[in-house]
Amino acid sequence: MTTREGCERLDAADPLRPLRHQFALADADARGVIYLDGNSLGALPARTPARLAEVVKVEWGQGLVGSWNAAEWITLARRVGDKIARLVGAGPGEMIVADSTSINLFKALSAAIALVRRDAPARARILSEHTNFPSDLYVADTLARASGMELVTVDHDGLGASLDEHVAVLMLTEVNYRTGRLHDMKALTHAAHAAGVMTVWDLSHSAGALPVDLNGAAADFAVGCGYKFLNGGPGAPAFIWASGAMLARLDREEWRSPLSGWLGHADPFAFSPTYRPASGVDRFVCGTPPILSLAALECGVDVLLEANALGGIATIREKSIGLAELFIDLVQQRCAGHELSLVTPREPSHRGSQVCLSHPAAAYPIVQALIARGVVGDFRAPDVLRFGLTPLYTRFVDVWDAVDRLKQVLESGEWRAPKYAVQTLVT
Amino acid sequence: MTTREGCERLDAADPLRPLRHQFALADADARGVIYLDGNSLGALPARTPARLAEVVKVEWGQGLVGSWNAAEWITLARRVGDKIARLVGAGPGEMIVADSTSINLFKALSAAIALVRRDAPARARILSEHTNFPSDLYVADTLARASGMELVTVDHDGLGASLDEHVAVLMLTEVNYRTGRLHDMKALTHAAHAAGVMTVWDLSHSAGALPVDLNGAAADFAVGCGYKFLNGGPGAPAFIWASGAMLARLDREEWRSPLSGWLGHADPFAFSPTYRPASGVDRFVCGTPPILSLAALECGVDVLLEANALGGIATIREKSIGLAELFIDLVQQRCAGHELSLVTPREPSHRGSQVCLSHPAAAYPIVQALIARGVVGDFRAPDVLRFGLTPLYTRFVDVWDAVDRLKQVLESGEWRAPKYAVQTLVT
Repeated sequence: MTTREGCERLDAADPLRPLRHQFALADADARGVIYLDGNSLGALPARTPARLAEVVKVEWGQGLVGSWNAAEWITLARRVGDKIARLVGAGPGEMIVADSTSINLFKALSAAIALVRRDAPARARILSEHTNFPSDLYVADTLARASGMELVTVDHDGLGASLDEHVAVLMLTEVNYRTGRLHDMKALTHAAHAAGVMTVWDLSHSAGALPVDLNGAAADFAVGCGYKFLNGGPGAPAFIWASGAMLARLDREEWRSPLSGWLGHADPFAFSPTYRPASGVDRFVCGTPPILSLAALECGVDVLLEANALGGIATIREKSIGLAELFIDLVQQRCAGHELSLVTPREPSHRGSQVCLSHPAAAYPIVQALIARGVVGDFRAPDVLRFGLTPLYTRFVDVWDAVDRLKQVLESGEWRAPKYAVQTLVT
Repeated sequence: MTTREGCERLDAADPLRPLRHQFALADADARGVIYLDGNSLGALPARTPARLAEVVKVEWGQGLVGSWNAAEWITLARRVGDKIARLVGAGPGEMIVADSTSINLFKALSAAIALVRRDAPARARILSEHTNFPSDLYVADTLARASGMELVTVDHDGLGASLDEHVAVLMLTEVNYRTGRLHDMKALTHAAHAAGVMTVWDLSHSAGALPVDLNGAAADFAVGCGYKFLNGGPGAPAFIWASGAMLARLDREEWRSPLSGWLGHADPFAFSPTYRPASGVDRFVCGTPPILSLAALECGVDVLLEANALGGIATIREKSIGLAELFIDLVQQRCAGHELSLVTPREPSHRGSQVCLSHPAAAYPIVQALIARGVVGDFRAPDVLRFGLTPLYTRFVDVWDAVDRLKQVLESGEWRAPKYAVQTLVT
């Protein structure tokens, strides 16, 4: 039987233990808050406030407009893109930070569709999963309608059989936001290619959380979020990636982004009245990037890169699996008889870095009662209690304490208090 | 003859004088820097560093994901939109902050085209000005091609005659980025409407710099930039506006943005797999907004709103005209015989808040030599020296000193030094 002392021993032996000090969690610790929502908004890296103060006071306040050159703002989106690339098996010059995940998805889908349909105009479907993140489905559906195509969604198990001559693009989020299920990127990409289908992967719940090997999987396009496991801050800008082969094809065909703004021009400061796309990944840039948010994102990514000295993403993954196994075991041992079911796959290799439970009627109030007890997870409609595990700062004792408080919430029935039934806007 | 002492007297009598202390210009002053590039990147408001530190350390660091509700991040884009609205004659609930100017332009053009072409499918032109900001032309050209339309550009004087039954949308930047010329929004909107044409205005160089009356001009759509006269910081997010009438039509026709991301959904947290656009201006939102950059933008806008107690935008405009008149007079008095020509209209009511000069061969090195002497303006290809006037912090003595140094640069010929001929990426 697992004990809290056993969890303390696991923490003492954790090679990632020094990284927790890289996050500003003193206030949460003082208030007894256990933060299991880093997959919605990653915690604040300890270095971010000072770096941001420097960007604001020195680079903007003193350097003024000259900082576009002197402080290298003009290349910051590429620099941070190259850093994120190292976390997801991408090469230098293949990734750039820009806009939001949804907007980058619009660009990546547009590019993939253009390349496929140039030779195979009859391929008129974007294929995805029913339970993909809704924003991805909205973007794809709208783009499909505008392009005389259709978005077709199937269950996870139906993906393989649906990869046929009607499909142009397979669009998937590697880790499902609601279930935590992890797709096999390499196998699905291989199956897609065998069917003449191009792939667009959303890495929002995988970048920084588990090993991703975009080039190893021969993926075509990818996008992802900066404010989850990359700890870039609320609404941090997103990233977009295309393989070297895709970038070369886009160059060859002089493809222009549907969002063709000035910083994606081959020579923005010539102020030419006619658009000529930049070569390479720069063609995905549209307007001027939000430098303050982008500088904060770099801090979050830098913490992850420092984890390389402690074993890097493989060690992060190992700890993530250990945390999740512990979470699931403890719920089974200590919270039986309360109608909770495990939503996340039981097999570690099939899940990302979160544990999701469901409750038939009371997922929302249970999550709220847990938050009142300091355990911050989140509710995902209609019935899911979601707990994100961030190995950089989540401890084994945190998992123990979280399940302990979950047990108390369930056994006391305190979640039945009317105040927990009122849904607030966001959790 | 104007003297420096005369300029000092003008400053002493300036009702906006107290506002200069609202900006972090101590370092620039200590270095003798005269900042005339607020129309590229507005100066840092003195309040921004503390506010941003609070957002980062307290709201993100301590409040964590709960700050989406508790710190009202979720409604921040609307709150700042409502504040900017007050500066440009728009009503509450008509404007929202999101994405970049170019991306907002894509959305506004898409909406306008959809509304016009529903009843008049033969209108297949977007009409604009040759010398409009290139990014606006790129976005419009790409969208036109994708929609079976064409972008047609004419000279300023040809706009009226080109408003015919072939045109769907007139897209103009109210103040030209390169010449500083100010369009008559009301008259052009009236002419457009008389020809059955809808208007999309880019306010990047007018919001916060001069009186804009979107509803008074009966304009249809507008977008604009947060980092120029709104002093929102490098790459600050942009705004998008539609009139109440347009918002009602978009509602009625259930128009969906081509960039239909989750935060533009009528009920984002229902996580429905099908898209249903939010009503009103929220339908223009796509992904999650960059909160850090957005919070900085609010600080800049708040400074402008405080100017209301000192006479507001009318006083700002009056001082802007005074600064420009002084600049032009001094250049004519003191820099004659050096091949400089005035690009900006001589008539104050025809220009924005900048003075542009041209030089047939040496605009770039002269701007660089001036920067070396601490006068920060910028070069705009191929031959323009651009000087932005920000009445919140630009003084009459600054104009005197800037022209004095321009005179020195021209008379000494120091701009001929080879180091000033090498173009850097951005100025």
